[in-house]
Amino acid sequence: MEYSTQMDAAKKGILTDQMQNVLDKEDIKKEELLQNMAEGKLVIPANKNHENAKGVAVGKGASTKINVNLGVSEDCFNTDMELKKVEESLRLGTDAIMDLSTYGATQEFRQKMVETAPVMLGTVPMYDAARKYEGESYELSVDEIFEVVETHAQDGIDFMTIHAGVNQESVDKMKKNPRQTDMVSRGGALLLEWMKKNSAENPFYEYFDRLLEICQKYDITLSLGDGMRPGCLEDSTDAPQIQELIILGELTKRAWKQNVQVIIEGPGHVPIDEVITNMQLEKKLCHGAPFYILGPVVTDVAPGYDHITSAIGGAIAASNGADFLCYVTPAEHLKLPDLDDMKEGIVAARIAAHSADVAQGIPSAVKWDQEMGQARDNLDWEKMFELALDEERPREYRKSSNPIDEEVCTMCGKMCALRKSRDSLKKEETE
Amino acid sequence: MEYSTQMDAAKKGILTDQMQNVLDKEDIKKEELLQNMAEGKLVIPANKNHENAKGVAVGKGASTKINVNLGVSEDCFNTDMELKKVEESLRLGTDAIMDLSTYGATQEFRQKMVETAPVMLGTVPMYDAARKYEGESYELSVDEIFEVVETHAQDGIDFMTIHAGVNQESVDKMKKNPRQTDMVSRGGALLLEWMKKNSAENPFYEYFDRLLEICQKYDITLSLGDGMRPGCLEDSTDAPQIQELIILGELTKRAWKQNVQVIIEGPGHVPIDEVITNMQLEKKLCHGAPFYILGPVVTDVAPGYDHITSAIGGAIAASNGADFLCYVTPAEHLKLPDLDDMKEGIVAARIAAHSADVAQGIPSAVKWDQEMGQARDNLDWEKMFELALDEERPREYRKSSNPIDEEVCTMCGKMCALRKSRDSLKKEETE
Repeated sequence: MEYSTQMDAAKKGILTDQMQNVLDKEDIKKEELLQNMAEGKLVIPANKNHENAKGVAVGKGASTKINVNLGVSEDCFNTDMELKKVEESLRLGTDAIMDLSTYGATQEFRQKMVETAPVMLGTVPMYDAARKYEGESYELSVDEIFEVVETHAQDGIDFMTIHAGVNQESVDKMKKNPRQTDMVSRGGALLLEWMKKNSAENPFYEYFDRLLEICQKYDITLSLGDGMRPGCLEDSTDAPQIQELIILGELTKRAWKQNVQVIIEGPGHVPIDEVITNMQLEKKLCHGAPFYILGPVVTDVAPGYDHITSAIGGAIAASNGADFLCYVTPAEHLKLPDLDDMKEGIVAARIAAHSADVAQGIPSAVKWDQEMGQARDNLDWEKMFELALDEERPREYRKSSNPIDEEVCTMCGKMCALRKSRDSLKKEETE
Repeated sequence: MEYSTQMDAAKKGILTDQMQNVLDKEDIKKEELLQNMAEGKLVIPANKNHENAKGVAVGKGASTKINVNLGVSEDCFNTDMELKKVEESLRLGTDAIMDLSTYGATQEFRQKMVETAPVMLGTVPMYDAARKYEGESYELSVDEIFEVVETHAQDGIDFMTIHAGVNQESVDKMKKNPRQTDMVSRGGALLLEWMKKNSAENPFYEYFDRLLEICQKYDITLSLGDGMRPGCLEDSTDAPQIQELIILGELTKRAWKQNVQVIIEGPGHVPIDEVITNMQLEKKLCHGAPFYILGPVVTDVAPGYDHITSAIGGAIAASNGADFLCYVTPAEHLKLPDLDDMKEGIVAARIAAHSADVAQGIPSAVKWDQEMGQARDNLDWEKMFELALDEERPREYRKSSNPIDEEVCTMCGKMCALRKSRDSLKKEETE
């Protein structure tokens, strides 16, 4: 093999199979792809052991990607159900799946998922590690933590969330700058607890080089977690959040030196007027590394509808630099999502991602809307359904109503504006 | 009576009951309210015959408002069902209702709605007029059209959509600048047909002074309709749309001279990168008149989910100058919405409006989010439900899951980040 990681290959000008997958699908030229990857601005998370994977690009010049979270947990440890979710999320067009399993047969599920899914797959190894002591993660030794990371790597996971920025420095900033909600990141809170109870530095931060060795060996993309992300609008863009981002920027440079690909994770809860600021800060402080955002939800007051609050934030963010959207379901802040919640979350995230791609003028994205506009003008219902981001729901809606004739819908009926204006203008032409 | 219209009162420095209603609810000072109203930048649509109405402010310095469309039609002419929708939309917190009735006992429904609803009420008189000739509106005489306008005014309607900008000039621009979808405005298409078949100018444009007389008499707020709004992203911000906006700006000044309040209606289908441009254009070309927008939906490809595509567009728009959002339901582009669709549409519109109010720093809006953040930090579930924009759904979600203990939720269970970080930081404090 002539290269260690996808980033190493790009630096050497080698076109990998995964890069070719990307060129086949995206509106990006080979030279631009190689350059963006060499600079760390675009990643293709592709574990060498994830054999059936197709390369998916995240970052500059690529379309906006979305991620689905699932996994077995104490409240839902039915492996078959979670595999059904994997299948369904692939059908609905997700670009990535994160397995957040915390309970039961996590490795069995993980390995089955890797066999099944050709999209990029991520985990948060700390969740799986904490399982060993039933959530009391502070009992883990440093070696035990790294063993779990290596196991996930061996199993073929493409990207891993590592909260290496929750260190003594950023925790100190959190103490000096009190928040409304201290920490809402599960991985961050597990590490905070570990650091406190062991009176030690964050092991991922302290032994970052050890982590990089594993990443290099399997070509894991590091998804540097935002343990300090704001959990309410009140805490948005505050000192702890930005302090952590500065630290993540430092770690990014160290990773790049070892040819390890990096994604930066971001907020969270952010009011609309701060979304663009957050995108710019990440691109500056983390040197153009791809930005993977959780939401952002743009208001705290709509539990039950956070797929909408985050579609608003995600669309604005992705139009202004965010590269990768973690889906948020209507169950967010309330419970584990079920299959229906998952579907709502995927569609909402895809809407946010696609509308941002259109705003950025990505040719294939723009063309899709043009085709739908044409189908509407033609009152071609079958074509509209085929072109729909989700085909099922519009078909159901149409079926449930009884238009006065096949051409129009029950919204305007006889007064169909499209038909009336078409007829009015057509008559004129033949006058 | 010392004043003719709310605008006239504002110019004279008179504080009306409706203005007092606004001062009681909004974060705006009396002087600012009077000045914005006198300048036409804020309106309080309040027909003198809408006796139980509470003043609702739309425009500069006021919070963002939302509107619900309903009404009897050939496909749904059950007056009781539509009155149930009125009731339900009031319960869900709408600020305005537009009755778009096109069939059956329209006046009976309209009068009952005026009796029932204290919010601002709107209609599109041309729909009701077209009913007379079963949608063949071109058979209407000019007098018949104005008679319908006066009937709606007498019945107590607060604001009326009048497509006065679809005139020979803008239609000419539409011919010279061909579009993908000619005209998607029902009211606009009815007038276009009328103009063509009668070889005449738009009666609302030609006899605009006659219209203003009626408006002044009853204090009707003119909602100048956007018949030329784009029906797909491809047509967005094009010559016909902007030509019509220029004409609406001219009509606005004529209305203001007669102390008639004006709202401008806007698109429609607009990609994210053009939303702010559209807001700025309206404020410039229409001299700061309040902007009432239909969406905008930010992609064409998501039928069945246009409450989300328009929540994205509406939130961005309202953060950048839009004052009033027309709700869009998941049924948009497919069929008449039912009660469930209406609920989804209202919640999505309220999310868009509120997140924009937060972005603009409206104190009462910001406070609401702060309270929710605090309830979350306290893991106070009952308080979270009480504060939720829609209380029902989060209660259902919580009820449907079985958390391991009452304090946390099934998302993280034992690994609850809030609890872990609170405990970690608390221990530190007492060390």
